[in-house]
Amino acid sequence: MTIKGIDLGRNTPLLDSMLRQRLTSCRSFGCRMYSTKPAVSTNATTAHDVSNKQRLFFTDPISPGSVFFLPNGTKIFNKLVQFMKLQQEHKYGFKEVVTPLVYRKSLWEQSGHWDNYKDDMFRVEGNDSSKEEYGLKPMNCPGHCLIFKKFDRSYSELPVRLSDFSALHRNEASGALSGLTRVRKFHQDDGHIFCTPEQVEEELAKCLKLVDMCYTKIFPLGKDSQFESYVMELSTRPESYIGELAMWNHAEDVLKGVLERTGKQWELNDGDGAFYGPKIDIKVSDQTGKYHQVATIQLDFQLPERFDLRYKDKDNTYKRPIMIHRAVFGSLERFMAMLIDSCEGKWPFWLSPRQAMVIPVNTRKDDQMKASKELVSYLRHEADAENDTPVPLNSFHFNVDIDDRAEPVGYRIKDALMKDYSYLIIIGDKEVETSKFAIRTRQDRKLEHLTSEEIFAKFSDLERHYR
Amino acid sequence: MTIKGIDLGRNTPLLDSMLRQRLTSCRSFGCRMYSTKPAVSTNATTAHDVSNKQRLFFTDPISPGSVFFLPNGTKIFNKLVQFMKLQQEHKYGFKEVVTPLVYRKSLWEQSGHWDNYKDDMFRVEGNDSSKEEYGLKPMNCPGHCLIFKKFDRSYSELPVRLSDFSALHRNEASGALSGLTRVRKFHQDDGHIFCTPEQVEEELAKCLKLVDMCYTKIFPLGKDSQFESYVMELSTRPESYIGELAMWNHAEDVLKGVLERTGKQWELNDGDGAFYGPKIDIKVSDQTGKYHQVATIQLDFQLPERFDLRYKDKDNTYKRPIMIHRAVFGSLERFMAMLIDSCEGKWPFWLSPRQAMVIPVNTRKDDQMKASKELVSYLRHEADAENDTPVPLNSFHFNVDIDDRAEPVGYRIKDALMKDYSYLIIIGDKEVETSKFAIRTRQDRKLEHLTSEEIFAKFSDLERHYR
Repeated sequence: MTIKGIDLGRNTPLLDSMLRQRLTSCRSFGCRMYSTKPAVSTNATTAHDVSNKQRLFFTDPISPGSVFFLPNGTKIFNKLVQFMKLQQEHKYGFKEVVTPLVYRKSLWEQSGHWDNYKDDMFRVEGNDSSKEEYGLKPMNCPGHCLIFKKFDRSYSELPVRLSDFSALHRNEASGALSGLTRVRKFHQDDGHIFCTPEQVEEELAKCLKLVDMCYTKIFPLGKDSQFESYVMELSTRPESYIGELAMWNHAEDVLKGVLERTGKQWELNDGDGAFYGPKIDIKVSDQTGKYHQVATIQLDFQLPERFDLRYKDKDNTYKRPIMIHRAVFGSLERFMAMLIDSCEGKWPFWLSPRQAMVIPVNTRKDDQMKASKELVSYLRHEADAENDTPVPLNSFHFNVDIDDRAEPVGYRIKDALMKDYSYLIIIGDKEVETSKFAIRTRQDRKLEHLTSEEIFAKFSDLERHYR
Repeated sequence: MTIKGIDLGRNTPLLDSMLRQRLTSCRSFGCRMYSTKPAVSTNATTAHDVSNKQRLFFTDPISPGSVFFLPNGTKIFNKLVQFMKLQQEHKYGFKEVVTPLVYRKSLWEQSGHWDNYKDDMFRVEGNDSSKEEYGLKPMNCPGHCLIFKKFDRSYSELPVRLSDFSALHRNEASGALSGLTRVRKFHQDDGHIFCTPEQVEEELAKCLKLVDMCYTKIFPLGKDSQFESYVMELSTRPESYIGELAMWNHAEDVLKGVLERTGKQWELNDGDGAFYGPKIDIKVSDQTGKYHQVATIQLDFQLPERFDLRYKDKDNTYKRPIMIHRAVFGSLERFMAMLIDSCEGKWPFWLSPRQAMVIPVNTRKDDQMKASKELVSYLRHEADAENDTPVPLNSFHFNVDIDDRAEPVGYRIKDALMKDYSYLIIIGDKEVETSKFAIRTRQDRKLEHLTSEEIFAKFSDLERHYR
């Protein structure tokens, strides 16, 4: 890796691991850690099968490397985004922004992409006479730098934490494209923190807190969908680097200190950092025990220079902020692939596009059919299209279906299990009479008898707390 | 307007009014109704001033025609999307999808865009040797046709209603770009319904129901932010048209019947329909009384042909579905401009990025400061970054700030009013003692005394019901 001056090549935050989809080929420089490790390829079949069974997504040669998320896949996608927005905004002080996808070539020249990353970018041009040249964004950092720069910033405003869920595009080789893991269009739970040198430590610690919550409490990744302990890797100053040695040493000490204070195991990749700053990568294993990167936290002394970012300090002088790039899921698409690999379609309730199947025992009995349909509508929390009362904000709506085919109950139960429904609700004469419905989980045959209100409350509680 | 055979020119659903951002120039054909009517231009200054004051958005020559939504603007944008998703999904049976932004040229050839709309589209190319040519999507319809076509469809599945909030790009002339109304990148509350001829009537009626709810109950557009009655216009078969006369006559009768049954006034634009089918446009007035289009509902017999869409009917034969294009907001960006024009920054509570300002009377008194800060945190519903309890799903979080500057109370109240805060909460000795806080609205000086729980409940109720 040849680094000289303002080289913003393959190993910048802009292109780095977290941000990278390229996992297939190790080109001329950079990308050392990931080039030989295809992400979640071992269970590509699983993802494909689950997607087919549940109609989650598809790809089509008409748009190579872009995923068409079907309604069920979109539900999962939206839930993941919703979860992360809530945590980022109301627990970690991020503010979401919506930024352009297409920027003039000059922005990419300023950020260094046009020189070093051009082959991986899509060029955009009008068809009209103007022929202006634009680049389709492969990452959000330059856009966030523009937002920081747009206003006079005081030390009292910092840290400024911006989050963004924009679509990103990178021109991966067409032969390498596959499913959710080798894509050209993807989304990140992207975030950039602009802070003072004194704030770096606390900000990093908070980033790790969020990572820890996700990978030990919310997302059961790893073998047998258990919460496997994730791996943290610190990559330090490489032979070629920019900036002052003292700053590097200080930054690495801070990172080590933060890692130590987590009380968790971490590994050192000595000299494997990016030339613009050290970083921490977080990896989680798939079903086969192979580790894949999800989250990353990177210090950057470089982009603030390139964009001449500054804030007014207490002493009225202008200082350069430090930039932290971070993502917790990384690519949403790849993260979904890892979730599918891990749960094999048996989604936790809150993420499941198939939360419950209602099965009337005797479909020829009107009262059973009526009770079943009413329950479905109640749990879906459907509003009447005829009146003008809006569906209220922040309401729960469960993904509940009915199987009223004229097939034996046992057959329909088996079918619903095969289709990965989280809950089965059986309605026979006794249930109609008592208005208490027989409900069981996917895993456990034991029936509980609950009213529709009790089921709604149970489901709300599960979903509210990401279970 | 010369139409011959499969001309998919400027007047297709793909390019039509609802979908169009171009409002400035009347080119060679099509676009008759809107060419001379700049959208919301009268109060461009208002939008600009409000945006500056509230930090809602900005534009930058680095990305001409694309809006940077700042955190406050993003909050409004997200709330609008959230509202519409809830109505579409849980009241009107839509299913959201996420679709690619970039498609091979051949798709745009099939849809007719490459021949007729090329100048308004952005072309996308890799920088690598492959040099494949793609188009950046100006509308979602072809992508939705692909999703419909992807599966064997039975009559029993219909209507299939797809919704999409993708970013769309159109290459407007750079001289015409301005704020939120003349943009190159925008988002729609886009939806397409694929249905049988028998279902068209009911589907159209439902579309109008949603429009009616929005423009008479939820969004106070028009003069003095009152719910002005909107205008509906039916555009019928033009001289040049495709399809059978009988089908047109039937479709127009259906549209007229649906309009009549609303019991509202409507206008006829005889011969002003698109060549592929008749349509209903909905217009709302701005502060000056000038009307601008928001919603549209368009019948399309053409794209189902071009994409050879079909479903298996009851009699086991394949039939061609009818496609309905519809949007209620139209362009989210333009809709936001209309809202700003209408409320002049005095957002309804649920949309406001400034819902309440907390003002301690004496900022040197510790107990007043403590009570104020606790109230802010409580109403923001902030979670502790230190623990690993996630922020729950569907929780309310209000946009509440504190003004604890050492300025007189009267000054700070005036300042908060000037900044358009919906509520002011004043905390003095008495409030600290009783734990009942003095709260008033922006409009009314009358103080109410409420506990923090009562304020939270009051705010939740307002937000839940879009007030």
